[in-house]
Amino acid sequence: MTPQSEDFSAWYNELVIKAELVDRGPVRGTMVIRPYGYRIWELLQSELDRLIKETGHQNAYFPLLIPQSYLEREAEHVEGFGPEFAVVTHAGGKQLEEPLIVRPTSETVIGEFMAKWVSSYRDLPLLLNQWANVVRWELRPRMFLRTTEFLWQEGHTAYADEAGAVAETMRALDEIYARTARELAAMPVIEGEKTPTERFAGAVSTFSIEAMMRDGRALQAGTSHYLGTNFARAFNIQYTGEDGQLSHAHTTSFGMSTRMIGGVIMTHGDDKGLVLPPRLAPYQVVIVPIGRGDHAAEVTEAATTLAARLAGAGIRAHVDDRPQLSPGFKFNDWELRGVPIRLELGPRDLAAGSAVMALRLGGVKEPISLEGAPARLADELAAFQDLLLERATEFRDARTVTTDQWDDFTKAVATGWARALHCGTPECEELIKAETGATARCIPLDGEPASGRCIRCDLPSAYGKRVIFGRAY
Amino acid sequence: MTPQSEDFSAWYNELVIKAELVDRGPVRGTMVIRPYGYRIWELLQSELDRLIKETGHQNAYFPLLIPQSYLEREAEHVEGFGPEFAVVTHAGGKQLEEPLIVRPTSETVIGEFMAKWVSSYRDLPLLLNQWANVVRWELRPRMFLRTTEFLWQEGHTAYADEAGAVAETMRALDEIYARTARELAAMPVIEGEKTPTERFAGAVSTFSIEAMMRDGRALQAGTSHYLGTNFARAFNIQYTGEDGQLSHAHTTSFGMSTRMIGGVIMTHGDDKGLVLPPRLAPYQVVIVPIGRGDHAAEVTEAATTLAARLAGAGIRAHVDDRPQLSPGFKFNDWELRGVPIRLELGPRDLAAGSAVMALRLGGVKEPISLEGAPARLADELAAFQDLLLERATEFRDARTVTTDQWDDFTKAVATGWARALHCGTPECEELIKAETGATARCIPLDGEPASGRCIRCDLPSAYGKRVIFGRAY
Repeated sequence: MTPQSEDFSAWYNELVIKAELVDRGPVRGTMVIRPYGYRIWELLQSELDRLIKETGHQNAYFPLLIPQSYLEREAEHVEGFGPEFAVVTHAGGKQLEEPLIVRPTSETVIGEFMAKWVSSYRDLPLLLNQWANVVRWELRPRMFLRTTEFLWQEGHTAYADEAGAVAETMRALDEIYARTARELAAMPVIEGEKTPTERFAGAVSTFSIEAMMRDGRALQAGTSHYLGTNFARAFNIQYTGEDGQLSHAHTTSFGMSTRMIGGVIMTHGDDKGLVLPPRLAPYQVVIVPIGRGDHAAEVTEAATTLAARLAGAGIRAHVDDRPQLSPGFKFNDWELRGVPIRLELGPRDLAAGSAVMALRLGGVKEPISLEGAPARLADELAAFQDLLLERATEFRDARTVTTDQWDDFTKAVATGWARALHCGTPECEELIKAETGATARCIPLDGEPASGRCIRCDLPSAYGKRVIFGRAY
Repeated sequence: MTPQSEDFSAWYNELVIKAELVDRGPVRGTMVIRPYGYRIWELLQSELDRLIKETGHQNAYFPLLIPQSYLEREAEHVEGFGPEFAVVTHAGGKQLEEPLIVRPTSETVIGEFMAKWVSSYRDLPLLLNQWANVVRWELRPRMFLRTTEFLWQEGHTAYADEAGAVAETMRALDEIYARTARELAAMPVIEGEKTPTERFAGAVSTFSIEAMMRDGRALQAGTSHYLGTNFARAFNIQYTGEDGQLSHAHTTSFGMSTRMIGGVIMTHGDDKGLVLPPRLAPYQVVIVPIGRGDHAAEVTEAATTLAARLAGAGIRAHVDDRPQLSPGFKFNDWELRGVPIRLELGPRDLAAGSAVMALRLGGVKEPISLEGAPARLADELAAFQDLLLERATEFRDARTVTTDQWDDFTKAVATGWARALHCGTPECEELIKAETGATARCIPLDGEPASGRCIRCDLPSAYGKRVIFGRAY
């Protein structure tokens, strides 16, 4: 496999295929998510779904095919997504009277039904979420990161007023997305607001979590939008208040997708392959029985017993008993697939009541007692999860430069991020992108107050704080 | 609401909307699954997914848009599904070189990848499952039962030989589908094989579970297909055996969908509305606090405390504290929505340490002690679940007639099912359908050996046992 340091992009493209996470689909830009990759998604999904429900949202399902006229109702929205539409023109053997768009996102169709379901202030807030596939025709597809079809959840809410909707937007960002990224994916994300250039088409304000990949680029890993009354006006989402007045609702939306899997790969992976955070690892512990001839059955049986004990302790354990493969091959295979802990179990280990533990990030191999294995491995997995977050945080901080010098800025964004003052004009952002490849990733929520001159054009700075710039996926 | 006995179809159509299970989508034949309906699906889904995994299948995800040429590769398959295709002809602002079909089912695209992933006998069996949306352009749509888009799981497996694949087909039918229908949905399904006329397009044999609705019609609630080597030949799924010989794999597929929700409604519902089996009820117990003025807060607080205790005991409980609605309105509302148990909690009940329990199927209302409520309600819910299955079984058996007389046959299929001998020719089945509206639902697996003359045409009977006929959804 191409080493990560040599060609990050080639490393990524080879790894996703070799680790059997995905395969290229038959149509350009599509992907087949294989069982090993899909299991990561399921683990992310179940926890994300729990957080979405805990914060009061209910799941629902809206149609895949949206009448073209719906998507045209919010002007900025159609301008933003229109070029990416996949269009159904024929169905049931006939040409359709109105073309149908395969949903690229569902603000429009959900807006239509919110209008139907909301009439009184008592119907608000309305907190919905949908797990779905969406299609956006991508020109430069990349497995997980930018595919023509992807899986995601999209939250859609309606509130009586701006304050409620803005609080919801921030709650989705912080309590759902930042938490999922940090606690599950061990990705130390920065929460912030997008500049107007990078806003969702149709939103009043867009917030995102941004993570740094091991090539220094930024990945937008989840977004949360305050839509104001834009969609409420387009779809007529109105309610009668306690005072009998008719008002438009304030809506929000938020989404996180299979792109997160790409983020996990590029945040933690190394030259040997994937490194999976235990909470998202399909197998947290793989046991490789080592023993030929007479010992084979005995060792495999002991491995199976151990795996069952680990499962009983809530640890996802797997015995690699493929007879045709050597232990060495298996070690490499599970390193490639990013399993946090490998246990080697041979006849001598078994006789000593122990197994040899090897951690995915290396270090000395160490015998551990079989008897105490469940407790010991639970501790090791928790420590591994913490270590990944720490390591990624250190990496990101080491590659983030706070600067007021253009030279330092261009150097910083070549290998990581720059925190710099910016004038806030789209033209200047455009020129920075043209010159350095970097875009404004976000205005961090926790940024210190700062003002002065724009890093590039010397106009007075905007936003009252520094902006994070970096090249992005 | 229209009474069930008066116009079953009108009752159904009104109920699914009034109980807030679905709304009609913007495109003809599509549905919006609302939170209350989607929660039923989630409860079904989580248990079905568990059974699918327990039987060794792994989840994966394949693309929504399938090249038209793939679907044309298996001749019977395209003939069966072709008229129902929804076709994407434009994407990314351009006309596509090859039209893409929105998947009506995924045998073709999964076949393509099975061919890629399978090379040796060691790669078999390959046991995949996918949770997905599919689109089939329906001429006579009906919410949940036949919608242009629906949600389902589709299992797809490949085996080295016929024996393995046939066993898999039966396992999906019996251990996954019949179990889900009986244990979760309290639907007493019959497992059987389809006659050639009713077979899946491209299958060697199709098996189904068939349930009787309260209007006597049959609902096919899940299907499992043995595909022989038909798709393996079309997509070149081949493997090298232990002996070095190259052979085609034998494949199977099986699917269960949101149609099951329609089945639950029509198996258990009555004039008052839904009757939900506890295992699929979003709320198993609804607590209605009754108390005005000074007592309102006290009673609502006690209801909330009780709900939390019930939740702790694994019971899905909900407090209906909507201030603007009367208790009577709430009672009707939750009956309409099919909640198995309602608890009424007023100040006098509270003082006596009890609540009044009302079961959805009626009977005397009874005070139960608050202290013992979790254990008591768990028992009541289990009994309610059992009762629904028994009641539906009795209903079905009472409306199923074993007959060799054409007159009795036509009477039987007007209100239920007939078990009759049949010659096995498609032409005769067609004539029976034209004359009575009934089709061959299945040749039951557990049918007693029987032979003689065809119920309609007097030719010698086929299949060695009786066939179940009935009008179907």
